[in-house]
Amino acid sequence: MKLDFHPAGRHFLQIPGPSPVPDRILRAMSYPTIDHRGPEFAELGLKVLTGIKQVFKTTQPVIIYPASGTGAWEAALCNTLSAGDKVLMFETGHFATLWKKMAESLGIEPEFLGLPGIEGWRYGVDADKIEARLRRDTAHSIKAVCVVHNETSTGVTSDIASVRKAIDAAGHPALLLVDTISGLASADYRHDEWGVDVTVSGSQKGLMLPPGISFNAVSAKAVAASQNARLPRSFWAWDEIIEMNKTGYWPYTPNTNLLYGLSEALDMILGEGLDNVFARHNRLAQACRTAVNAWGLPIQCADPSVYSPVLTGVMTPDGVDADQVRKVIYERFDMSLGTGLGKMKGRMFRIGHLGDCNDLTLMATLAGCEMGLQMAGVKLSGSGVAAAMDFIGSQHVPFQR
Amino acid sequence: MKLDFHPAGRHFLQIPGPSPVPDRILRAMSYPTIDHRGPEFAELGLKVLTGIKQVFKTTQPVIIYPASGTGAWEAALCNTLSAGDKVLMFETGHFATLWKKMAESLGIEPEFLGLPGIEGWRYGVDADKIEARLRRDTAHSIKAVCVVHNETSTGVTSDIASVRKAIDAAGHPALLLVDTISGLASADYRHDEWGVDVTVSGSQKGLMLPPGISFNAVSAKAVAASQNARLPRSFWAWDEIIEMNKTGYWPYTPNTNLLYGLSEALDMILGEGLDNVFARHNRLAQACRTAVNAWGLPIQCADPSVYSPVLTGVMTPDGVDADQVRKVIYERFDMSLGTGLGKMKGRMFRIGHLGDCNDLTLMATLAGCEMGLQMAGVKLSGSGVAAAMDFIGSQHVPFQR
Amino acid sequence: MKLDFHPAGRHFLQIPGPSPVPDRILRAMSYPTIDHRGPEFAELGLKVLTGIKQVFKTTQPVIIYPASGTGAWEAALCNTLSAGDKVLMFETGHFATLWKKMAESLGIEPEFLGLPGIEGWRYGVDADKIEARLRRDTAHSIKAVCVVHNETSTGVTSDIASVRKAIDAAGHPALLLVDTISGLASADYRHDEWGVDVTVSGSQKGLMLPPGISFNAVSAKAVAASQNARLPRSFWAWDEIIEMNKTGYWPYTPNTNLLYGLSEALDMILGEGLDNVFARHNRLAQACRTAVNAWGLPIQCADPSVYSPVLTGVMTPDGVDADQVRKVIYERFDMSLGTGLGKMKGRMFRIGHLGDCNDLTLMATLAGCEMGLQMAGVKLSGSGVAAAMDFIGSQHVPFQR
Amino acid sequence: MKLDFHPAGRHFLQIPGPSPVPDRILRAMSYPTIDHRGPEFAELGLKVLTGIKQVFKTTQPVIIYPASGTGAWEAALCNTLSAGDKVLMFETGHFATLWKKMAESLGIEPEFLGLPGIEGWRYGVDADKIEARLRRDTAHSIKAVCVVHNETSTGVTSDIASVRKAIDAAGHPALLLVDTISGLASADYRHDEWGVDVTVSGSQKGLMLPPGISFNAVSAKAVAASQNARLPRSFWAWDEIIEMNKTGYWPYTPNTNLLYGLSEALDMILGEGLDNVFARHNRLAQACRTAVNAWGLPIQCADPSVYSPVLTGVMTPDGVDADQVRKVIYERFDMSLGTGLGKMKGRMFRIGHLGDCNDLTLMATLAGCEMGLQMAGVKLSGSGVAAAMDFIGSQHVPFQR
Repeated sequence: MKLDFHPAGRHFLQIPGPSPVPDRILRAMSYPTIDHRGPEFAELGLKVLTGIKQVFKTTQPVIIYPASGTGAWEAALCNTLSAGDKVLMFETGHFATLWKKMAESLGIEPEFLGLPGIEGWRYGVDADKIEARLRRDTAHSIKAVCVVHNETSTGVTSDIASVRKAIDAAGHPALLLVDTISGLASADYRHDEWGVDVTVSGSQKGLMLPPGISFNAVSAKAVAASQNARLPRSFWAWDEIIEMNKTGYWPYTPNTNLLYGLSEALDMILGEGLDNVFARHNRLAQACRTAVNAWGLPIQCADPSVYSPVLTGVMTPDGVDADQVRKVIYERFDMSLGTGLGKMKGRMFRIGHLGDCNDLTLMATLAGCEMGLQMAGVKLSGSGVAAAMDFIGSQHVPFQR
Repeated sequence: MKLDFHPAGRHFLQIPGPSPVPDRILRAMSYPTIDHRGPEFAELGLKVLTGIKQVFKTTQPVIIYPASGTGAWEAALCNTLSAGDKVLMFETGHFATLWKKMAESLGIEPEFLGLPGIEGWRYGVDADKIEARLRRDTAHSIKAVCVVHNETSTGVTSDIASVRKAIDAAGHPALLLVDTISGLASADYRHDEWGVDVTVSGSQKGLMLPPGISFNAVSAKAVAASQNARLPRSFWAWDEIIEMNKTGYWPYTPNTNLLYGLSEALDMILGEGLDNVFARHNRLAQACRTAVNAWGLPIQCADPSVYSPVLTGVMTPDGVDADQVRKVIYERFDMSLGTGLGKMKGRMFRIGHLGDCNDLTLMATLAGCEMGLQMAGVKLSGSGVAAAMDFIGSQHVPFQR
Repeated sequence: MKLDFHPAGRHFLQIPGPSPVPDRILRAMSYPTIDHRGPEFAELGLKVLTGIKQVFKTTQPVIIYPASGTGAWEAALCNTLSAGDKVLMFETGHFATLWKKMAESLGIEPEFLGLPGIEGWRYGVDADKIEARLRRDTAHSIKAVCVVHNETSTGVTSDIASVRKAIDAAGHPALLLVDTISGLASADYRHDEWGVDVTVSGSQKGLMLPPGISFNAVSAKAVAASQNARLPRSFWAWDEIIEMNKTGYWPYTPNTNLLYGLSEALDMILGEGLDNVFARHNRLAQACRTAVNAWGLPIQCADPSVYSPVLTGVMTPDGVDADQVRKVIYERFDMSLGTGLGKMKGRMFRIGHLGDCNDLTLMATLAGCEMGLQMAGVKLSGSGVAAAMDFIGSQHVPFQR
Repeated sequence: MKLDFHPAGRHFLQIPGPSPVPDRILRAMSYPTIDHRGPEFAELGLKVLTGIKQVFKTTQPVIIYPASGTGAWEAALCNTLSAGDKVLMFETGHFATLWKKMAESLGIEPEFLGLPGIEGWRYGVDADKIEARLRRDTAHSIKAVCVVHNETSTGVTSDIASVRKAIDAAGHPALLLVDTISGLASADYRHDEWGVDVTVSGSQKGLMLPPGISFNAVSAKAVAASQNARLPRSFWAWDEIIEMNKTGYWPYTPNTNLLYGLSEALDMILGEGLDNVFARHNRLAQACRTAVNAWGLPIQCADPSVYSPVLTGVMTPDGVDADQVRKVIYERFDMSLGTGLGKMKGRMFRIGHLGDCNDLTLMATLAGCEMGLQMAGVKLSGSGVAAAMDFIGSQHVPFQR
């Protein structure tokens, strides 16, 4: 079978994850698999377990699962909750909705806050609503507040610190569970400072790895809650993993070759410096939005204070099928863009500018979008590419070697 | 960080899994990650979903999880059972014991058949005992029989067809759940012919992949049971995956790069021919046992009819710490052997001869063991290497290109 | 040592060679080295020897040297000429000049035709001048005419068929030696149809390989001439290589892993189709020139009939150091452009758009140039990026899978 | 095309070069090709140029050619000699003979010392003969003495220091040219201490790289001689390369990706320590000879003081075609051994134990030979494998991490 389908030249994978895996990481993943019980493995295990904490900005345990991100969602729920527990969730988009659906499947009772219709998918988490709801829950029957940090379906990055403040202001003991699957290592994230109890993340976004490993960063309060949580669990159970991780091992076979990749990713990210990584993402995101504005198309995220540094959702005019635009671009320019999900199906496309991305890759992406939109018959009010060049050209970025 | 720790020359990874990953597979895994919702992905998805059925010898669905093998154990249980359900398990070794422990964690009530002490870890599943126990269960309160096909901790490959016959002879409706994590693609396995309801397997053994993906092959009866099974599940739930797999996609992000590896593994295995693969494993296993016999050391498996083609457990004489022997061999010959697990800790070591292994690699392995045993002070009654050469030299193997 | 120097995201290697090596080729090059005298090698050898002929459009022998392109220049000369032989060369740029210098080093007496000063580096080979000169050589003391097909230093692709016609029109027996090191597999080239006696080429341009192998395609007349040529030669000698190549082997150790790469490159190029490859290069080159024209900067090649599909030379305004522009672009946008060579040092830069290049990669390149030129203080008369988008958007390119 | 021909398990490439390329080097070779005129390249260039000197044990220039080893032979000759020059060569085997043939092709007049018939191929260079011949050359018409350090066709490693002493004792000004293509980084070699004027080497032996780069280490006397040497040369000319190498660049395109490999190889070799590398080669060679002695077969090298640490030539009994033995071993055990070359065709085979080889790989090799010899009908006087295990087991080798 031919696994390299693409025609000449490089494919542009500009979906909001899986993001392009750098050659350094692909090479690292090709190291020979070693004995996961041997002395060498512990060195690898301790390195990645220590390094990943820096990315989560935590000094508390981070569990690394040999499973994709959806599994880490389940882990966060089943380690902290019991059947019938009430949780407060917030509808920011498709992934918040899927997480809610998962909670229901597991026998949890989520209450879903948010705005109705499409509008609800254009704003971030409203901490005031959460606070108000928690204040009403005087019996403390709500066991957890679950929010998505970076909504991959819309391009909205919610303010997690404000959610923490809301819970505290309400004097409510609920746990704070946060999904930053697509935010980690692209948008600033502070597990400890923001008082998050469980942070869920994955490998195939800002960490630049293929899908296949995922994370739970946990607080002492979350670990304590896990002692009483009664949802059945074994594969996802934190306790034994946390215990064995102390020596660099796992209770069951870890995902060795993806851990090689994680080791390399940590070297790259911490080598560039987290602040530089975030600044790069912010610059590219702003350049992208500058282009979308010049085209005269609406950005899916309607609140500039929560624009995502990871992706930008672009809404197509009425009567234009966004998936048709994507198809034109894919077939003519060999570029993949994200589809509109759920409520937004056919009404928007998503441009990923995360992970191993730089100014010129973004310019290629915007040029492909601009030409493709025109080919698909979309009237643009101006050149987004020109506007993005003006913006990028105005930015001072120190030379790094 | 240095991920290539080893001194000059090739490391010999002779544990019973993860087995050495062939270069072809490592290279395939380094293809660029593609859009898991794009048109190319479906082609890959359908290829691996079709190919893996041939290895399981089934025409029914095989679910591929982006998670390591332990997860697939959990999937088998939580898709078919409800809290409080009774299941019959059989203690063949460490992994059978761990699976039982998992069942307990999930709120299932396993009953553990088997022989007491170390003896129980030297024989395969006794189908007669299962039949007898099922006959007594006239109320059909036992919902499933769970057995391990190839016990990785001991080197025993149980007769699954006999278990099926036992269940049928007892006229019992229990499901048959089988773990062949380390048996698949090394030992003959027939999901359909043997009437297995759920077969659990993993990637890092006979399939020659790194750890990270795992499998549930299912029967119609198992799928039907899943409609009534009430253990909470979401990530592991079969139904949505089976549905989406029809078009080559997954409901959540699959493990793309390991699927590239699986595609290549299938090309290799089906290219060699399953019967040739099994014959090679049998030849190497017999050569290995010939050597152990010549050394005068006991083989852990006490019943020749269930010797494993995957690995051979070698018991060390009283007073000899098997882990000390392993350490000598590791440090002097850069070879990893499997440790004794659970009850067998320090009393045996395990030689893996599975996956991408051939005659000369086995000879290197046996030479390392023989020299290492002597260095560790073990008295041998003869040269296992010489005996193995005699055996291998006597075998006719047609030249393949 | 850190061999991956670059900051985040992909480096843009837009020099006119070495061109970016596709992942497929890098992976192929990582196959294990095999016995160059074993049965498997012959299969590889015969495949690449057959395939490369299709790219040269010849049915005559093509010699593959385990040496970089400069060596193949020497091979062309020392197999066909003797010390003191006169040859006619044509100054089209830096590489034509270096080849002349090599001829002198080897004791050959080149006569250099062409225009004086920088003007000579802005036009292709003038076949009329060659014809006139050959007509004057009634004693036939000129043994060969040596011209460069694609001048990598300027971006001029000369008309080789016209040179053949000139030689024939003059009724002169001189051999025709052509360097298409940077033209092969990017610009149309017809060794047999154009009556070339020796064609010299290399791996690191249109063939998309790293440097390290090079080629001599030869005619029967050239082989006959080699019987009488008296320049000392051993490593470069054709006869023994041609003889052993018949069975797929080489008289000395070939460059095995680069031959793996060549095998893959041939699969890619012949799979895309030579005509499609040339059309893609022509489209990208025209898009690039459209941009340069819009910027209001002179293209180094002053004759539109010989514009190169491989690279475009861009002259900077008086007072602007082209290398300073390159430095700005390199440091700010992580893109490498070709420097001005020899006479053109500091007065132009070269944009490579060859090999594994596509529309969006070119757009990224042009955006980097446009922003970088402005940062370096160059006044542009318009947006080359906008002009190139207009051009590319107007081109119909069928979807290929 | 299928480039991975081999059946299941790892191929054993036990020819005396190309030797198996370690994964670390294959991975390093897959770094993206960079601009050979850019700032990053200089860092790579200076690193490898510095490191390779340590392996040659010289402080003088080492030229790295983007060409295979045969080219470096030609370079040594054409940089130091003129047509008609007399040189003294010594017949130690097939490669000494090929080098002499090359000298003749280039117009040099070699005189070939050595013993007649097969006997001449079983001993090293006889320095006394060289001294005697030089003493007779009172006119100093002999311009160079050319010897092979490690004869790859026989397994004889000559004493180069004694040749230096012989030249000095004769008070003769001849240059000393030495081929250690297969000796470098496997056998101790001291370019400066031994007073060698030009040392020729290649990449695909002790340096563990694929073929494709080669070396000339030069002395000041050799460089001085090059000023007057009149053989035509351009590609091989030292002066321009030495000059440009000072800044880490080359006058023409270097073999970038093989230089990545060289960089990694230097890290591996200097990391292990040259003395440890040599000790490992000596141990493996002695183990191999111990096995051959136990088999009762003659070792091609008849003088124990010059046994090669790189390879061992094994002579087959009269009436046994060594190539038939090799074929049996190749087809049954997927192992490649070196063929008998020239005079030894069909009368011996060669076991390579160089480069990335360790104790267990050697044991596999010996087991394959022993079983294969028996399958081919060769009577052995005892088990070489058993003897080699006794020897290896008796050797203390400190554990390295």
